[in-house]
Amino acid sequence: MKLVSYTRDGATRHGYVADEAAGTVAELGDGDLAAVIAAGAGTDAGWRPGPPSATHGPAELTFRAPITRPTKVLAVAANYQDHVAEGGGAPLDKSTLAPRLFLKPGTSVADPGADIALPVVSTQVDWEAELVVVVGRGGRDIPVEKALDHVAGYAVGNDVSARSVDYGYQRDTSSPAVGYFDWLAGKWPDGFAPYGPYLVTADEVPDPQDLGIELEVNGTLRQQGSTAGMIFTVAELVAFASRLMTLEPTDIIMTGTPAGVGAASGTYLAAGDEMTVRIAGLGALTNRVVQPNSER
Amino acid sequence: MKLVSYTRDGATRHGYVADEAAGTVAELGDGDLAAVIAAGAGTDAGWRPGPPSATHGPAELTFRAPITRPTKVLAVAANYQDHVAEGGGAPLDKSTLAPRLFLKPGTSVADPGADIALPVVSTQVDWEAELVVVVGRGGRDIPVEKALDHVAGYAVGNDVSARSVDYGYQRDTSSPAVGYFDWLAGKWPDGFAPYGPYLVTADEVPDPQDLGIELEVNGTLRQQGSTAGMIFTVAELVAFASRLMTLEPTDIIMTGTPAGVGAASGTYLAAGDEMTVRIAGLGALTNRVVQPNSER
Repeated sequence: MKLVSYTRDGATRHGYVADEAAGTVAELGDGDLAAVIAAGAGTDAGWRPGPPSATHGPAELTFRAPITRPTKVLAVAANYQDHVAEGGGAPLDKSTLAPRLFLKPGTSVADPGADIALPVVSTQVDWEAELVVVVGRGGRDIPVEKALDHVAGYAVGNDVSARSVDYGYQRDTSSPAVGYFDWLAGKWPDGFAPYGPYLVTADEVPDPQDLGIELEVNGTLRQQGSTAGMIFTVAELVAFASRLMTLEPTDIIMTGTPAGVGAASGTYLAAGDEMTVRIAGLGALTNRVVQPNSER
Repeated sequence: MKLVSYTRDGATRHGYVADEAAGTVAELGDGDLAAVIAAGAGTDAGWRPGPPSATHGPAELTFRAPITRPTKVLAVAANYQDHVAEGGGAPLDKSTLAPRLFLKPGTSVADPGADIALPVVSTQVDWEAELVVVVGRGGRDIPVEKALDHVAGYAVGNDVSARSVDYGYQRDTSSPAVGYFDWLAGKWPDGFAPYGPYLVTADEVPDPQDLGIELEVNGTLRQQGSTAGMIFTVAELVAFASRLMTLEPTDIIMTGTPAGVGAASGTYLAAGDEMTVRIAGLGALTNRVVQPNSER
């Protein structure tokens, strides 16, 4: 089932895709998908949507991020060997590594179709096509073998990243810590975590490690890979994260990007660029890049 | 005014301290303090609490974190020169630096008085007494001169930190990135961001850069400093963070810790230890350290 959150008549509502070709949605209720996640959508095999109140056509609705404000936005760095290689890194030996997790703020979440404003602090803004995992059932110390039972479903995402930050004055960058905190900050600007439009329930994704994933900028293919290339699998990421902290329903995990980011070739996003990420069976996520917002 | 969130009769409610010596609270409503923050408490000079529904004594209530689930938990590394020095770092020259921000997950927030379980992934858990800023009015690109207008108030906090993490297998730590991601993960365990019990409105804190701050473990003084020792001031931190991302009402910012952390002397927390952080005018925050929770 393709679950969706959307705006209709000025309010956020949720439902499921009734007819994908026609773009119609069967409405289940007000608010985003958090309500059906809590009821077991995607994790409880017995869950069924209630009777829809009505069916709406595409002209009536604007899709939103499936969970508009996730309880946590976790993401993973360096999780595809080919992406590590294009950044100049040596091959990573998974047996002696831990996943490199980081957090993005709730304000970084953006809706499918939303414009993403270039931040004033960077001229090196880049794309990262990613499979997004939506946690449906919380837990701690979840074993790898049971980890996928905690996943409500999957979505298409883009971990937009500023590869450098410039705060408008000359800084001393001799300490390695500066580079690291700059790297982190480059993940945080508003709109840098678009995902959606569908939350495809886990039952429709028999193997999350066998999904084609690609990204185009202005129609030019920039990334093309498969989630088979992940160093740490979805199950391993869920299990690992849950050893560090409690995972909760409506947490999301962005699972890393394959090769083809702009930084590898020195190509960065400019106002007017349009990014589209596609993952097999999960649909397409398009966002346009726009000029920095004026100071508020 | 000392605003408080607390549990009474099994539900979270909010109010203000009526008589601090007696421990009585005047109740304003259900839920935590987010409601009065949204109404302007601490930021709008014209805000006054509505008439309390009743007054309750200390036996009837258990204080909670003022905002039980902040929209963001931002924190700052290396923001007191004496703490940098005790870690072996050279003095930092503020004119060529940016604040070193990081995020903690919502699940790290803990209530005053709550037990904090040692995580299974570390034997080097440490304390960090910190002044906590509660954002009352959101904004982006906030100028330093106006930054304090966005602060609803202040609280006592503890940025509990695991100085090492051990995932139970031998890792290759030759890459500096491993150390950075371990450092980040050490900030995330459940309960590692206790703060409270009071949200003291900004009008009662004429100068947030002139507050004595100290921390005791089992009655032994471990940290004693003043917020005058901050490298980046509260106003500078708010302004800086708001250049990277939109700040929202109920975001909190943990503003760094002075010298005296356990790592400097190789002293770490053990089950049974009791930490108390005190900041002049803001009250005391006590949390006890307990054994790791059994696997769930």
